Amino acid sequence: MTTVQNAASEFTREVGSGGAFVRQTNRFVTPFGTADGELPPEPGRYRLLWAPICPWAHRAIIVRAVLGLEDAISVGTANPVRTEQGWEFSLDKDGVDPVLGIRFLPEIYKETDPDYQGRATVPTVVDLTTRKVVNNNYFRLTNDLETAWSAFHKEGAPDLYPAELREVIDALNDILFHEVNNGVYKAGFARSQEAYEQAYDTVFARLDDLEKRLEGRRYLFGSSITDSDVRLYVTLARFDIAYYPVFRTNRNRLIDFPNLWAYARDLYQTPGFGDTTDFEAIKKGYHLGDIASNPLRILPKGPDLSIWTSDHGRERLN
Amino acid sequence: MTTVQNAASEFTREVGSGGAFVRQTNRFVTPFGTADGELPPEPGRYRLLWAPICPWAHRAIIVRAVLGLEDAISVGTANPVRTEQGWEFSLDKDGVDPVLGIRFLPEIYKETDPDYQGRATVPTVVDLTTRKVVNNNYFRLTNDLETAWSAFHKEGAPDLYPAELREVIDALNDILFHEVNNGVYKAGFARSQEAYEQAYDTVFARLDDLEKRLEGRRYLFGSSITDSDVRLYVTLARFDIAYYPVFRTNRNRLIDFPNLWAYARDLYQTPGFGDTTDFEAIKKGYHLGDIASNPLRILPKGPDLSIWTSDHGRERLN
Repeated sequence: MTTVQNAASEFTREVGSGGAFVRQTNRFVTPFGTADGELPPEPGRYRLLWAPICPWAHRAIIVRAVLGLEDAISVGTANPVRTEQGWEFSLDKDGVDPVLGIRFLPEIYKETDPDYQGRATVPTVVDLTTRKVVNNNYFRLTNDLETAWSAFHKEGAPDLYPAELREVIDALNDILFHEVNNGVYKAGFARSQEAYEQAYDTVFARLDDLEKRLEGRRYLFGSSITDSDVRLYVTLARFDIAYYPVFRTNRNRLIDFPNLWAYARDLYQTPGFGDTTDFEAIKKGYHLGDIASNPLRILPKGPDLSIWTSDHGRERLN
Repeated sequence: MTTVQNAASEFTREVGSGGAFVRQTNRFVTPFGTADGELPPEPGRYRLLWAPICPWAHRAIIVRAVLGLEDAISVGTANPVRTEQGWEFSLDKDGVDPVLGIRFLPEIYKETDPDYQGRATVPTVVDLTTRKVVNNNYFRLTNDLETAWSAFHKEGAPDLYPAELREVIDALNDILFHEVNNGVYKAGFARSQEAYEQAYDTVFARLDDLEKRLEGRRYLFGSSITDSDVRLYVTLARFDIAYYPVFRTNRNRLIDFPNLWAYARDLYQTPGFGDTTDFEAIKKGYHLGDIASNPLRILPKGPDLSIWTSDHGRERLN
């Protein structure tokens, strides 16, 4: 059976005990690398499919930009408003990705594996030599770009994943995943009041902790941006515009945390971050897509986003 | 035909050109007073039906408390979560109003007028001597309590509607009605993007104006509370908890306006205001009632409401 379920019903399949949201595991997890069976890094060979709404995909786009991999890895951009048929390339001419010729993302998953039953997610890396999905492992993809692709980084690119910090970065990334990045989804996709409140409490307890952590240092691991900052940023950039109103993570907004808010603006104003952050797309995706309950499809006009370019004053922490 | 439509479909009948929300006019508008055909003020004779979610009814409850009319006019309180059968007295023993014995508010409208076709709204004033609805005119009811009922005010009660200010109070009340009190509803009940954005713009333009007005004076007309302050307060008290997320009036929150926010706290901390403001009921009413799109009926845990009791510092403006 190769029918791709509509996304709403797909999500409702990812339910655990007590109405909790349990995200599906990734199917295509072969890492990039030069070892046997790994995906060989090779400029021009891969296409990265994403949607600007999606925090999991946005990570990879930020890292690609920060490291200067734009010419090495091409990108296909889906409409931020996901349809019941999945992510759609309706922003492109004739409504198809100009390289792959697909209209909906699930098509390439089906081509790759006719038995694929999961959601067709972004980021998706397609090997253009085989037209197959070779990686949709958002959890490790940035790390692959930071390490296996280092020969193709631009001159002077920062080391987002320094060898001596990998252990602590990985440990923090695990926490960020469960309590922040996916934490907001656990609140938004909870199917019981109890599961929602538990997720809400976890999100804000962790944000309170990060707020303290960022009091005395510019980035999560000091004066240099790392992979963890990318992961925290993508959730913060969506917080007030999407998670606060749609996922009900509304104890307070990002802009009510003095340090997290200044930190988020600091990153937003860093090349690769703000210039890949499409607030309008994010707003549309969460408020008009299949994950919202918005029968009249009215798009909120707020909040005021002009404040993202205001002074953050965090240079003093260097 | 005496069937009372469910509230959702009732609201959708109040639609004007371009998808704008056009609130129904009140049916029972006879004022209180001693003239022929007016409703004679008489302690114990009337029952005021309300629901704590409802800003239109909350006005009358605040004025009743501020003026000390609690013993003169009894109150029946509906569940804040309105049902498809209308406001329900399910908080009372056996689920009926203990004085009127009705389960749903529409029952008393039907008893009063079998041909009544409008929504059965709060506030509703019932004459207990006839068991008939005699007034549901939220727009003038507070003024009636402030004037026609003055013989029953408590000693030292403030004059909320001083004769020399009535003209300017009425003029401001008209603006507050169209642009603030009902302005947020026009945003929330808009059935087109255009109607929503127009309402949103109007609300925030007026709030910006009120923000400036309250810079130099403690209340809207100087150092004394008036009827207009009651009307502005009931909308402000619901702004961040309900209108911002549910009605999408989200350019910014109340707490982002320094003067309006301090002014709202000042009133909240005034007897008759905060003690009649049931945030939990307001939250439930807007997020779980028939006006929300919330199929899983998950109640937001936020926002943080403890800040309403924080210092407002507006005494200096006296």
